[in-house]
Amino acid sequence: MTDVRVGMVGYKFMGKAHSHAYRDVPMFFPEQPRPIMKMICGRNEKNVQKAAHQFGWEASCTDWRDLVNSPEIDLVDINAPSDAHKEIALAAARAGKHVFCEKPLALTLDDSREILQAVEQAGVKHMIGFNYRFAPAVQLAKKLVEEGRLGDIHHFRAWFLQDWLVDPDFPLTWRLQKEVAGSGSHGDLGAHLIDLAHFLVGDLDEVIGMSETFVKERPVPKEMTGLSAQASADSPKEKVTVDDATLFMARFKNGALGSFEATRYAAGHRCTNSFEINGSKGSVKFDFERMNELQVYFTDDAGDVQGFRRVLATDPDHAYAEAWWPPGHTIGYEHTFIHEVVELMTAFQEDRQPVPNFHDGVKCQQVLEAVDLSIEERRWIKPEDL
Amino acid sequence: MTDVRVGMVGYKFMGKAHSHAYRDVPMFFPEQPRPIMKMICGRNEKNVQKAAHQFGWEASCTDWRDLVNSPEIDLVDINAPSDAHKEIALAAARAGKHVFCEKPLALTLDDSREILQAVEQAGVKHMIGFNYRFAPAVQLAKKLVEEGRLGDIHHFRAWFLQDWLVDPDFPLTWRLQKEVAGSGSHGDLGAHLIDLAHFLVGDLDEVIGMSETFVKERPVPKEMTGLSAQASADSPKEKVTVDDATLFMARFKNGALGSFEATRYAAGHRCTNSFEINGSKGSVKFDFERMNELQVYFTDDAGDVQGFRRVLATDPDHAYAEAWWPPGHTIGYEHTFIHEVVELMTAFQEDRQPVPNFHDGVKCQQVLEAVDLSIEERRWIKPEDL
Amino acid sequence: MTDVRVGMVGYKFMGKAHSHAYRDVPMFFPEQPRPIMKMICGRNEKNVQKAAHQFGWEASCTDWRDLVNSPEIDLVDINAPSDAHKEIALAAARAGKHVFCEKPLALTLDDSREILQAVEQAGVKHMIGFNYRFAPAVQLAKKLVEEGRLGDIHHFRAWFLQDWLVDPDFPLTWRLQKEVAGSGSHGDLGAHLIDLAHFLVGDLDEVIGMSETFVKERPVPKEMTGLSAQASADSPKEKVTVDDATLFMARFKNGALGSFEATRYAAGHRCTNSFEINGSKGSVKFDFERMNELQVYFTDDAGDVQGFRRVLATDPDHAYAEAWWPPGHTIGYEHTFIHEVVELMTAFQEDRQPVPNFHDGVKCQQVLEAVDLSIEERRWIKPEDL
Amino acid sequence: MTDVRVGMVGYKFMGKAHSHAYRDVPMFFPEQPRPIMKMICGRNEKNVQKAAHQFGWEASCTDWRDLVNSPEIDLVDINAPSDAHKEIALAAARAGKHVFCEKPLALTLDDSREILQAVEQAGVKHMIGFNYRFAPAVQLAKKLVEEGRLGDIHHFRAWFLQDWLVDPDFPLTWRLQKEVAGSGSHGDLGAHLIDLAHFLVGDLDEVIGMSETFVKERPVPKEMTGLSAQASADSPKEKVTVDDATLFMARFKNGALGSFEATRYAAGHRCTNSFEINGSKGSVKFDFERMNELQVYFTDDAGDVQGFRRVLATDPDHAYAEAWWPPGHTIGYEHTFIHEVVELMTAFQEDRQPVPNFHDGVKCQQVLEAVDLSIEERRWIKPEDL
Repeated sequence: MTDVRVGMVGYKFMGKAHSHAYRDVPMFFPEQPRPIMKMICGRNEKNVQKAAHQFGWEASCTDWRDLVNSPEIDLVDINAPSDAHKEIALAAARAGKHVFCEKPLALTLDDSREILQAVEQAGVKHMIGFNYRFAPAVQLAKKLVEEGRLGDIHHFRAWFLQDWLVDPDFPLTWRLQKEVAGSGSHGDLGAHLIDLAHFLVGDLDEVIGMSETFVKERPVPKEMTGLSAQASADSPKEKVTVDDATLFMARFKNGALGSFEATRYAAGHRCTNSFEINGSKGSVKFDFERMNELQVYFTDDAGDVQGFRRVLATDPDHAYAEAWWPPGHTIGYEHTFIHEVVELMTAFQEDRQPVPNFHDGVKCQQVLEAVDLSIEERRWIKPEDL
Repeated sequence: MTDVRVGMVGYKFMGKAHSHAYRDVPMFFPEQPRPIMKMICGRNEKNVQKAAHQFGWEASCTDWRDLVNSPEIDLVDINAPSDAHKEIALAAARAGKHVFCEKPLALTLDDSREILQAVEQAGVKHMIGFNYRFAPAVQLAKKLVEEGRLGDIHHFRAWFLQDWLVDPDFPLTWRLQKEVAGSGSHGDLGAHLIDLAHFLVGDLDEVIGMSETFVKERPVPKEMTGLSAQASADSPKEKVTVDDATLFMARFKNGALGSFEATRYAAGHRCTNSFEINGSKGSVKFDFERMNELQVYFTDDAGDVQGFRRVLATDPDHAYAEAWWPPGHTIGYEHTFIHEVVELMTAFQEDRQPVPNFHDGVKCQQVLEAVDLSIEERRWIKPEDL
Repeated sequence: MTDVRVGMVGYKFMGKAHSHAYRDVPMFFPEQPRPIMKMICGRNEKNVQKAAHQFGWEASCTDWRDLVNSPEIDLVDINAPSDAHKEIALAAARAGKHVFCEKPLALTLDDSREILQAVEQAGVKHMIGFNYRFAPAVQLAKKLVEEGRLGDIHHFRAWFLQDWLVDPDFPLTWRLQKEVAGSGSHGDLGAHLIDLAHFLVGDLDEVIGMSETFVKERPVPKEMTGLSAQASADSPKEKVTVDDATLFMARFKNGALGSFEATRYAAGHRCTNSFEINGSKGSVKFDFERMNELQVYFTDDAGDVQGFRRVLATDPDHAYAEAWWPPGHTIGYEHTFIHEVVELMTAFQEDRQPVPNFHDGVKCQQVLEAVDLSIEERRWIKPEDL
Repeated sequence: MTDVRVGMVGYKFMGKAHSHAYRDVPMFFPEQPRPIMKMICGRNEKNVQKAAHQFGWEASCTDWRDLVNSPEIDLVDINAPSDAHKEIALAAARAGKHVFCEKPLALTLDDSREILQAVEQAGVKHMIGFNYRFAPAVQLAKKLVEEGRLGDIHHFRAWFLQDWLVDPDFPLTWRLQKEVAGSGSHGDLGAHLIDLAHFLVGDLDEVIGMSETFVKERPVPKEMTGLSAQASADSPKEKVTVDDATLFMARFKNGALGSFEATRYAAGHRCTNSFEINGSKGSVKFDFERMNELQVYFTDDAGDVQGFRRVLATDPDHAYAEAWWPPGHTIGYEHTFIHEVVELMTAFQEDRQPVPNFHDGVKCQQVLEAVDLSIEERRWIKPEDL
């Protein structure tokens, strides 16, 4: 078992989350290969040096090519803005590096497929950052579905509700610009719901969606840092080019009905990434704002004590939980990334592809674009036709 | 202020609920005209006599024509099975009676319109039984919307989840037969969601839906009583002709996005009639299983104490609440009917049409059929085009 | 099976609740003897006549002796202010009437015992109004304890939290005057907790308490109606002579530990009558503000799905539930009284004492006074020593 | 601003939590002095070396004296079993080291005072590990109290409920042995409640308690590791010498009433560290199993929208929150330790005593012993009399 030397491109929100995961894995999951934090890359030299020091990277650089081509790097972690994913991923594959890429894999389905093809040809490992799979409560949902304890699945409904755009004066950050972000709430939030649907229920047969941009123009910020940005009262306004909210319905290949909603306009919801599954033998409900809990219902409970159980997924029976604290001592958002890296390191240990990987990234992108097309053409679309 | 003499057709689930409402109104809302429980009608003479005695009706009959044409009746209450609504309502209107009809108004939009036309021509009062409007918590939601305290509405999502069909051996009751019930979960449960959407947010511009019948055949019951029925192991099976679940998306005329789901296959949900509204200044959430509560969020709360408030709608400031018990002493399902009859009696007192009335019934039917058509033709449909 | 002719003394809050129960029992529980609402008594002639009309009583009177001695009355229902209970109950027993008395049975333990002795000597039925026992969710808790499904009981903790006295300008109603009410939160709210403890866990071996009157003086109201009262800004203030809050700890005879708290100063709690029981095999939690729900936990649930279940006590398996509406359609505060009267009528039918009866009333009073004595003498007191 | 070189004694549950805190502080709170993880000490050489490697300490030792006397150590962190605290703390003070000690400060009040005297004489910084203060939601409760937004405090009720002893075959770990642990649920869990009471409401004037050991004997384990232990079916049983549960009531010096309960027998509660405060202007509720949330109620909210708000303490307005993730992205148990170390490092930066420190440890011990004495002598005790 050898260490895995990591080079990471990006140092903002996701860069911080990934860095912390690399730091924590050896302490809490010492049986896996250790990620070695070799090099971090960012365009602003001063900032990336500061990040390297703060996050614990051995070195930093400003040109990702240096990192990708360094013989000291085994794994390239890409969490730069979405429009940069493709070029870096292709170069990393060409250089024979394993690749861990934040979602979305790329801005388009075609680009995603090109990246997948590249890593497959290169024969490297590839992982995509659908971190929400790695909440122990979500893992429990997966286990219950897989073991047949929910029976046949009839319904999947999921909604990712945030509220940071409710204020019409919130500035026009890069996440609201199509050319950088690729998509708005659909690609940012909806993508996670789609991945959870794939993970928990299976493939979608057909979809139809609708979307809206409620606030058409927003003030241009003077400066941006990660998610935050500042605009002044007299800032000029420019057009918002992504969706504020996207909803879609779906039919799964197994016959289940699906309902999806992603929005940044749900006042009061800071990060309600929530789903519910109803099966012939039971149901589960999840809400990321209470990420340690899974609500579980079984139809065969005794007649006088049927009801959703609030399961705190912190017991030894729950995925990843024993590495942490005693039962009832909860974990947080960042732990989804730590568990994600555990999966990645375990894949190295077992010499297999990690899951989710670029196949999942492509499949997600396929649904995202199918929904976009269904909105454009106002008709049902089969993702696999794309 | 004179009493209102009621004749009621139907004596099962809804008949019981309405009867109790008539009994309770004079005690808790003594300022309104009194409904006088004159006559109840049902096809089975012995059963309807028993019901008359048990519920407190002065007399009973087995032919609704007797009731409709009786000079002792001012108001005809129709809660017989859905396929009987039209004939009775038309006859009542012709006889110059006021009409209170359970939802659905009729099995088709055309029939609904015919009924509306009849009561308008007759110049009688007409009310439709969308009882969920009358939960004080729902009234509070309405008040917050109307007073602008939620701002512009961006999202309305609603789901009515039940689970009494999860068992595939549950018998084929009349509610699963299209020719009697008209519709399945869509018309039974979805209709309530549509009415709440109209009540709380406004008219729908266009819709698109999907539906499914998960269990295609069910055992034929030997006997049926209201909602319940018994089938034995060797009962023959026949085809279920209504939908088990129907979902649809909608765009409101005011630009809000809507998401609707009605199902009888959501294990663990006995009666989750739930909605959420997100506006530019706040949000509300409602779940009928906790019908005394409204979750309320305001964007202008102080920055360190923002969060959904669990408002118990039992304070003097809440609709209908003062007639009942001290704050914190909750009410139940049946109270929605009591409040509904209060509205009806108040309309008599003020000599105006009660709300909701047959206009609302027609509008609801319009959306129901628009969704059906959108499912059949797999395309977006404008309700007002029907 | 013959009808039971009721005469009721009192027509305010409890009088209304009892009246409604008598009205509803024959409709929803038609198998029991029917309570006939013969006569209602109150001191103000005009008001009691109005109440008689509104609530549905055949006649009214202003001297309870007329009612107690009427040959047309089988059962005397006493819900007049607490200081009047004793005299009426004794007279009713002497007259050979069955007695249904609101809690508290009397202002003192001695008086309570005298009343019990009187009804026992008279050989009449007697019931006391601990209505909270009759919530179906509480009945479920009882069933789980009795069937051993919670194992040996280790803990009982209960709190009855209200907030109507938080405002220091709330007037000095009769409930704040010791000579009328006998006690404050302790006797009003704590009494219910004590009865639930007796009902669910068993007898108390010893207790020790503490209490406080936070606001020492309050404005004297000009008029009082039931629970409400009005005082003006220039109203003179007088001393509050009852406790605002009383807490106590207890050891049950079966070894369980108990914790009790009653207060009218818990801002945000309108009517949080709540308890939790922890046993060696499971736990239950109840909160009256969500009275249809019981939270239930079992230690032998599978290791990965352990958690409190939210049981909605509206299924056919739950006490009284089938008489009402389909599963998931909740009931309210008033239903506890309806079920209470069902128990009373069933006792007539089966010719037995109803439960809870004056034995329970005496036992509750014993604990109330033991707690009072423990506060006065600052030491542990055994209720059975009183 | 210079680094702080830490030597830590202990490497089990608390050792892991502290180590992780030292690792994370420089990354998420880079403005504070950096804790340098110099040396870790444990009795088992192999295990402590493993821990040093896993947790990231530069060196390890097996004799705490080496660590205490090392010139390379500025701060001694003591999280060895409770019976070892005193000797190490005294030695550290004598050596002029700053001391960070896990709770309890010592096994007795006398010992605690001796330790406090020692650090004061030595003029070193001292901190005690009441980590629950550092949940942002608890900090918010503190802020609301301090700013007067809850008004005068009437009630504080707190309970720390766990269930790991419900199984009578759970082995006799060191935490169940008085000579090592000093106390059972009282000192382990109750101590946290007492500290929160001091932190949030103020000093206690008098207390009275009760306690119980439900399972008198338990199997002796063959091996113990941190919190866990294994015993076989044929293990001999020995006496449990600590309390399984301790309850007490208290009167605060400011007139508020307090209720406290600590137990390890509350089936279904993994780690319910919960409190509620009721004041004249509002209330707050906290439950550690949902540690990111504070329920907040204000009496001056508009009459129709009063209710407890579920505040997710992850907004920029909340303590420590900005260092982490965007709003709605929750944190976990371990973060309480990270924030605790932030306070410790900030105290170095500002050259002041950290809070809570040994004064708080002594005050907590005073209450613990007052409660013990009140149980023994069955009477009210004033902590300050001890």
